[in-house]
Amino acid sequence: MATYRISAGLWCLGQTADRFCPTGYSDAASVQEMLRRAGEVRGIEGVELHWDTDFTELSIAEMRDLLKERKLVCSNMNVNTFGYRKWKHGAFTNRDPRLRREAIELATGAVAAARELGCSVGLWLGADGFDYPFQVDYRKQWELTIEGIRTVAQVDPTVDIGIEYKLKEPRNHMQIGSVGKALYVCHEVGLENVGVALDFGHALMSREDPADSLCLLARSGKLFNVHFNDAYREWDDDLVPGTINLWETVEYLYYLKVTDYRRWIGLDMFPFREDPVEACQLAVDNIKAMLRLAEAIDQKVLEKAQKTMDAIATQRAVRGVVFRE
Amino acid sequence: MATYRISAGLWCLGQTADRFCPTGYSDAASVQEMLRRAGEVRGIEGVELHWDTDFTELSIAEMRDLLKERKLVCSNMNVNTFGYRKWKHGAFTNRDPRLRREAIELATGAVAAARELGCSVGLWLGADGFDYPFQVDYRKQWELTIEGIRTVAQVDPTVDIGIEYKLKEPRNHMQIGSVGKALYVCHEVGLENVGVALDFGHALMSREDPADSLCLLARSGKLFNVHFNDAYREWDDDLVPGTINLWETVEYLYYLKVTDYRRWIGLDMFPFREDPVEACQLAVDNIKAMLRLAEAIDQKVLEKAQKTMDAIATQRAVRGVVFRE
Amino acid sequence: MATYRISAGLWCLGQTADRFCPTGYSDAASVQEMLRRAGEVRGIEGVELHWDTDFTELSIAEMRDLLKERKLVCSNMNVNTFGYRKWKHGAFTNRDPRLRREAIELATGAVAAARELGCSVGLWLGADGFDYPFQVDYRKQWELTIEGIRTVAQVDPTVDIGIEYKLKEPRNHMQIGSVGKALYVCHEVGLENVGVALDFGHALMSREDPADSLCLLARSGKLFNVHFNDAYREWDDDLVPGTINLWETVEYLYYLKVTDYRRWIGLDMFPFREDPVEACQLAVDNIKAMLRLAEAIDQKVLEKAQKTMDAIATQRAVRGVVFRE
Amino acid sequence: MATYRISAGLWCLGQTADRFCPTGYSDAASVQEMLRRAGEVRGIEGVELHWDTDFTELSIAEMRDLLKERKLVCSNMNVNTFGYRKWKHGAFTNRDPRLRREAIELATGAVAAARELGCSVGLWLGADGFDYPFQVDYRKQWELTIEGIRTVAQVDPTVDIGIEYKLKEPRNHMQIGSVGKALYVCHEVGLENVGVALDFGHALMSREDPADSLCLLARSGKLFNVHFNDAYREWDDDLVPGTINLWETVEYLYYLKVTDYRRWIGLDMFPFREDPVEACQLAVDNIKAMLRLAEAIDQKVLEKAQKTMDAIATQRAVRGVVFRE
Repeated sequence: MATYRISAGLWCLGQTADRFCPTGYSDAASVQEMLRRAGEVRGIEGVELHWDTDFTELSIAEMRDLLKERKLVCSNMNVNTFGYRKWKHGAFTNRDPRLRREAIELATGAVAAARELGCSVGLWLGADGFDYPFQVDYRKQWELTIEGIRTVAQVDPTVDIGIEYKLKEPRNHMQIGSVGKALYVCHEVGLENVGVALDFGHALMSREDPADSLCLLARSGKLFNVHFNDAYREWDDDLVPGTINLWETVEYLYYLKVTDYRRWIGLDMFPFREDPVEACQLAVDNIKAMLRLAEAIDQKVLEKAQKTMDAIATQRAVRGVVFRE
Repeated sequence: MATYRISAGLWCLGQTADRFCPTGYSDAASVQEMLRRAGEVRGIEGVELHWDTDFTELSIAEMRDLLKERKLVCSNMNVNTFGYRKWKHGAFTNRDPRLRREAIELATGAVAAARELGCSVGLWLGADGFDYPFQVDYRKQWELTIEGIRTVAQVDPTVDIGIEYKLKEPRNHMQIGSVGKALYVCHEVGLENVGVALDFGHALMSREDPADSLCLLARSGKLFNVHFNDAYREWDDDLVPGTINLWETVEYLYYLKVTDYRRWIGLDMFPFREDPVEACQLAVDNIKAMLRLAEAIDQKVLEKAQKTMDAIATQRAVRGVVFRE
Repeated sequence: MATYRISAGLWCLGQTADRFCPTGYSDAASVQEMLRRAGEVRGIEGVELHWDTDFTELSIAEMRDLLKERKLVCSNMNVNTFGYRKWKHGAFTNRDPRLRREAIELATGAVAAARELGCSVGLWLGADGFDYPFQVDYRKQWELTIEGIRTVAQVDPTVDIGIEYKLKEPRNHMQIGSVGKALYVCHEVGLENVGVALDFGHALMSREDPADSLCLLARSGKLFNVHFNDAYREWDDDLVPGTINLWETVEYLYYLKVTDYRRWIGLDMFPFREDPVEACQLAVDNIKAMLRLAEAIDQKVLEKAQKTMDAIATQRAVRGVVFRE
Repeated sequence: MATYRISAGLWCLGQTADRFCPTGYSDAASVQEMLRRAGEVRGIEGVELHWDTDFTELSIAEMRDLLKERKLVCSNMNVNTFGYRKWKHGAFTNRDPRLRREAIELATGAVAAARELGCSVGLWLGADGFDYPFQVDYRKQWELTIEGIRTVAQVDPTVDIGIEYKLKEPRNHMQIGSVGKALYVCHEVGLENVGVALDFGHALMSREDPADSLCLLARSGKLFNVHFNDAYREWDDDLVPGTINLWETVEYLYYLKVTDYRRWIGLDMFPFREDPVEACQLAVDNIKAMLRLAEAIDQKVLEKAQKTMDAIATQRAVRGVVFRE
């Protein structure tokens, strides 16, 4: 059976808030407390962190010690440009050269931290996009997006950079909004160490079949990280995996195996109203259960059915893993 | 030309935040400061307030004085159950009788305040809904929703209660999620003073044509309040009116006139990254400009075209107001 | 274990076509041939028919004989106003009184046929709606919709009329587009024999949770018929049940049981590219398998968890039926 | 003022049908009749044709004569694989090598016809995609898609091939479903004569801002054709341009000018219930009117505002062209 190392975004274990309840649905939690909670979840071996917001009170060395203490490693270092007010109109694409340079510097810091901690870097450019027609000059947006990512990727060719695309939120339109745009950026940047972090719910929001996006990225050798969660398809609901779109999650796991994925799989959820440790535990349990379902699919039988391209034949090849008949 | 008194939700003029930037895209602003800003917007004559969160440091009398000073009145008093952590799983529908009673009590306080200030009450039950299949017993949800609204409406039959429906956010599913459900609740409650507050973007999110929803409510005498904003149809983007869906907003204004609406029209926006006074001013300017477009439609000509039910004929009857030909 | 009589819409077993391939993805099939196919599907005991398009070459008596021969009964008689070019701008709502009268007459014929065959009538008003802003006068639309349904329902109070709501297609906006609007119409019409036919995919398209819609209708005694299929939530994809949204279909079946539904459950699919008998057989097999999953949910345990309103607790209460742990 | 040659898809002028009314909302029309209608629309100088379905009764030479008679030219030759039942499971991606070869041969015929008529080829691969999870092997889908397009493009390097991406319909998922995937395919194929045909409504359906997609394609020199229509964002409604999303269409025209587009602009609509000549005339009139609005935008003023990235500033820079203030 395929085994994957599972990590959790540290944010899954912290305080949640939204625009209607900005003071939060639970108490604020320190990085130490969130790490402690991560350590409590059976099956979690790593965490994804944010640079530099998870390091405001801790040095990299202190973080490493804390991780070690919890028997965790850092699987991915995400660059947090979206949590700073100054970048509200854009980070990598900001038309103010000083703000743009500061964003690149932040990402450069993340690369350095990632090298020290032995992990990849995640670039989810949450601040880069637009809200209204006519608001930005799209020609500049694309130019600056590509230039910025190339600059960051050139800092250290040994550190992998995974672009995490997302259609929208917090901007109404985000610049790198689909798997195809992410691949296009990889191609334009043209560097080996630039790939894509695929988030299940983001793929759904862009109306993709996540397993198809996975195969498209794998085909190009650009699948650098995968995130698990679930959603109702038109927003990044960040629910517990397997609770809404069971079949498409099983399919996602099936193709992870078939394409011989060997990196981390990560939880990226937002348990607004739930206990974070319980939510992560349920996520791990569901992923493991769905992995068993995916493993139970007879690949030869399915591939033979797929040659017919007939939906009934392919459904007959897979449905038994859930319906036991 | 039809004239309407325009109010602004006080929240349009305050600090904005979201789950990725909970510390806000601008500085926190006191109620006094938000009222000062509202007073700066030319064309704004009223504000919608929230009970009790706008009254934590001000008595009702003090609020009235402040409003007077700014030449404003309170047009609607919204019940804020969604900003309190304790109601994260539901307010009117909470299965804990104590929490449910507290929610009803909060709304009862809003009715009293509304009576003192001479305005209606808004019930946007943002906390009542669910996020996952199986999470709640829908039978109880409907029972408690209706019972709660009836209880609040019976507090004072002279105070109008406007139910503001919304499909989702902050819950993935909200209980009163469409114009039809809101009307159903009005019918079940069966009290004269219970009607509906129609939000343009909420209607879009529920995939309604807002003008059709308006006519449906007007037909039943249940159109108690209208909100203006704009959106991309699948989320409550709360953008400035007239910037995305121009035609449907003009149509909305046309039917406000045709159905002889005589209450307030309110701004309900969330200018996350914009100056709030400038955003509200643009909103007022756009509404007034679109009102002129709506007025420029020749009702007789349009109604004659509508008898043919032909889209080309009806488009020919209205397009000139924008295209001037 | 709850058992339901399952019927199939006869159209599930015929030729499929769309706007890009109007000559069809398979050969045309006569009513006799479609009935023969229905008889081949193990577990199908009834069919839903269309008045008058399924009766152009058969009398009601001949239909009854044919049904008997196949060991089938007619479970529901749907009024087909949407297949006639003359009603392209509206049937019940057409502003031309003659066309409107002809639509009512067609429905009246369906009531008579339903009485003879001992079944209910289905009113899916596919032609009534609009495509563009300003195209119709919504005030007239609602007036004529309600007037038309009332007229049809008064023909024979012993024949149940189930309004099947749908957001869109073939019109961009259909007049009765959500569960709430359907309930509103029931209320306005005010007759005992007017209720609602709930279609799983239509509920999804209106962004409802189908089980919630089911409970809302059951609460009012208005759940007259249920349709099964599956979809990706933004269109009426009419796929085989259980292939996309497994959990929500299990939930739908769970609440059918809990609300003690005792009428037919019907297949409403459009197997564009599949063998129709195989597609219906898969549908029946999936529904029976999901019924077993729904039965396996311990109602007491789930209801206890639902009292906490906590998503983790409720997920823990149901997930085992699929994950077997 | 920028002037563009406008063409109409011949299908805009023919019979319309859908799955509920497969016999059509109007009478069948011959190619000759559709061309006659196209000639009646003031402002139309070209037509887009389909290979080989528009040539079943006409030779290429006869078509040229007919076009000349109507003072029209062929602006684009689309390959029709989606109207043939045999390719219901895929054309370029069919797992049956014979069917795949036949699809490539059809496209090769279109290239030859395009060369003779002096136009580009359109590849909207409507049959290539999938409807259910697990139905196809995505790895094969991408391999065959790219291989097929490359083969067709190599037939004649002087004939431009424009890939028209579309999210879905007639398949629930189409393989080339977004602007990014289309660009990715261009990159993988790696031939100068392979580019993209951008359809306004398809961009909306993929939740793109059409003007942003336009700029992305222009940046790569891959904008080979543009289609106009309008839609409600979640389906390919193919409505008359300018009737729903006015601002985004003006923006689309503004960026056509700014990026110095010099090819055809085409109508791609489906006037299901409207007179086709009137619908096309309204479309041309609206496009010309919106072109005037786009021309009225002061590029220097807008670009200065765009440097601030502020939505209020940019709205203030453009709103006057509609609101005249």
